Amino acid sequence: MTKNLETGMRPRTIRFENAYFSEGFSIVGPKELRGKLGDRFDFALLNDRFDQKTFEKAERKMFETAIDGVVSKSKLLPIDVDAILGGDLLNQIISASYSARKSPASFLGLYNACGTYAESLLIGAAMVNKYYKNVVCLSGSHFSSAERQYRYPLELGVLRSPMTQWTCTGVGATLLTDTEIRPNSPRVTAGTAGRVIDFGIKDVNNMGAAMAPAACDTLRQFFADTGKTVDDYDLILTGDLGKLGKEILMDLAAQEGIDLSKNYADCGAALYFERQKTYQGGSGAACSAIVTNSIILDSLRDGSMKNVLLIGTGALMSPVSAFQGESIAAIAHLVEITGNVDESPVEVENNEDFKSEENK
Amino acid sequence: MTKNLETGMRPRTIRFENAYFSEGFSIVGPKELRGKLGDRFDFALLNDRFDQKTFEKAERKMFETAIDGVVSKSKLLPIDVDAILGGDLLNQIISASYSARKSPASFLGLYNACGTYAESLLIGAAMVNKYYKNVVCLSGSHFSSAERQYRYPLELGVLRSPMTQWTCTGVGATLLTDTEIRPNSPRVTAGTAGRVIDFGIKDVNNMGAAMAPAACDTLRQFFADTGKTVDDYDLILTGDLGKLGKEILMDLAAQEGIDLSKNYADCGAALYFERQKTYQGGSGAACSAIVTNSIILDSLRDGSMKNVLLIGTGALMSPVSAFQGESIAAIAHLVEITGNVDESPVEVENNEDFKSEENK
Repeated sequence: MTKNLETGMRPRTIRFENAYFSEGFSIVGPKELRGKLGDRFDFALLNDRFDQKTFEKAERKMFETAIDGVVSKSKLLPIDVDAILGGDLLNQIISASYSARKSPASFLGLYNACGTYAESLLIGAAMVNKYYKNVVCLSGSHFSSAERQYRYPLELGVLRSPMTQWTCTGVGATLLTDTEIRPNSPRVTAGTAGRVIDFGIKDVNNMGAAMAPAACDTLRQFFADTGKTVDDYDLILTGDLGKLGKEILMDLAAQEGIDLSKNYADCGAALYFERQKTYQGGSGAACSAIVTNSIILDSLRDGSMKNVLLIGTGALMSPVSAFQGESIAAIAHLVEITGNVDESPVEVENNEDFKSEENK
Repeated sequence: MTKNLETGMRPRTIRFENAYFSEGFSIVGPKELRGKLGDRFDFALLNDRFDQKTFEKAERKMFETAIDGVVSKSKLLPIDVDAILGGDLLNQIISASYSARKSPASFLGLYNACGTYAESLLIGAAMVNKYYKNVVCLSGSHFSSAERQYRYPLELGVLRSPMTQWTCTGVGATLLTDTEIRPNSPRVTAGTAGRVIDFGIKDVNNMGAAMAPAACDTLRQFFADTGKTVDDYDLILTGDLGKLGKEILMDLAAQEGIDLSKNYADCGAALYFERQKTYQGGSGAACSAIVTNSIILDSLRDGSMKNVLLIGTGALMSPVSAFQGESIAAIAHLVEITGNVDESPVEVENNEDFKSEENK
């Protein structure tokens, strides 16, 4: 990897030949079920507790269900999985760690906040492309456990600010394999791990603004490394910038000569209806994971999309760093997912969710 | 990777040809400076605060110093580093995340508690062996920030139980490269990512007992996968089982036919003198990182050791999981580090620290 003479930037994009996106599984909470993509998910909780005594235990049970679900759907056995890669938003990523206890696979714990799913896909693709046969990549979050840990316990009934996003409840899991075990599987073909970017934003209720510069930085890096442009993709998809963050990214990208007006969507902005009062939309480590493992995977399989750039965004602060006066450091990891379809594309109606979801 | 017909186990060990352990840097606190390995580290704080207002900021400054230190020692520039991989014990791994803010490299946040350093070496070696040119792998912890977060603020003066270990203060960083940029560099030649193992232990003051079964599981897996035995290594080194955990591992290994009586040491048990009253020895995400990047790297370079198995151990619980009645899930990741020395070995006195440190 040598420097790009035109931009002076050192390439940071890596490529994969044999990383098949063989299966996806998504489990969501009741609010997500009633949202725009409700009929696209594999499994939904009827209540936030999932029959557990605490929200944290419910979150873990979602992780266990997602691991079992993605392995069962792909007709593999738990013993066939070499490693589980993932994380969540709880301190010490206990949801992911404890869920892996039930599996005979190796576990690699990851944390890049809401960018964890993209991070797991990037490292997971690197591992199956060269070392492992089958890995599960996953990430998730739970609204109620996140509120308790990061903000206020729900019982306090604190009013939310209009700039906030709604930490979505769910887990998305992907089975990556080194060979095509199901026809028409998309592949993870490239990845750009992001840098930590801090624009000095301190408002923890406005994380979209903190994360948008990181998303812009990684996207610019990827285009510089590969020579590709926006027009080479059916969809550019950020994780959870929300509606405001999405506008900010479009402005920042325009300054870099990247026109995101045509084929750009944000998972967070696409999840809920306006009447659900999530204000800026969804967020959380589940956000990009549940969207990618449902409608995006379906669209890549049926040929209605041929290639997608997923940019998982994460805000890396903690309550302690915020109390100590730190601004919000952010990161964005990019993965290129390429469809592997022979027949001509089929027009699918729900696809429109991702080209104009904010107009609905 | 096919099943081992004799044991029925699926191999989980991966191998690397081009992952050079090119440089190491260790920064430690005042207590570690006065410990057994005090003269082996690169840098020591004269006080716990490192001229910062909070322990958390001091911890971050150690991370920044370690990244700068390992890059400078290797005579590279910050721009030459493709990625930083690492984590720490603070919620949302803010020390590692925020320290990466100053670097132009990509950042991949990891968390496997005190096993994070071994995890970073394993993933880092996989990345330089195939994708990246230079990566920094690091992990660290700070006694005072860990006490505040996991146990009690220091100001309370709570008495410690005799089974406890002392979270050590420090950061260890490694520069892994895809080519040998310095003669006689050891290499990371294999890695086995551990499974999450839970033996039902609930005493958070006795984490060595919780982690020993995980270390045994990973070691057994590595020997089954590779056909190697204890006798093939100069040293088998666990991260932070402490004195009691070390005894437990020796017993468990003996039941598996693995004799650890000759060449086994534990980083935690080797760090402090008896008079320093750490009881079971050191622990924390810094523990294996500072030992590996000081005396172990020196010994591999001067030929007094030819090959080492590092088994980084981690206890994956959180205060929340403990409050909710969960037992301590644990993990252990193994990396094989092989010296690359032509001349005949030199006998080095401090080496003895690792063969009989508990007798001192």
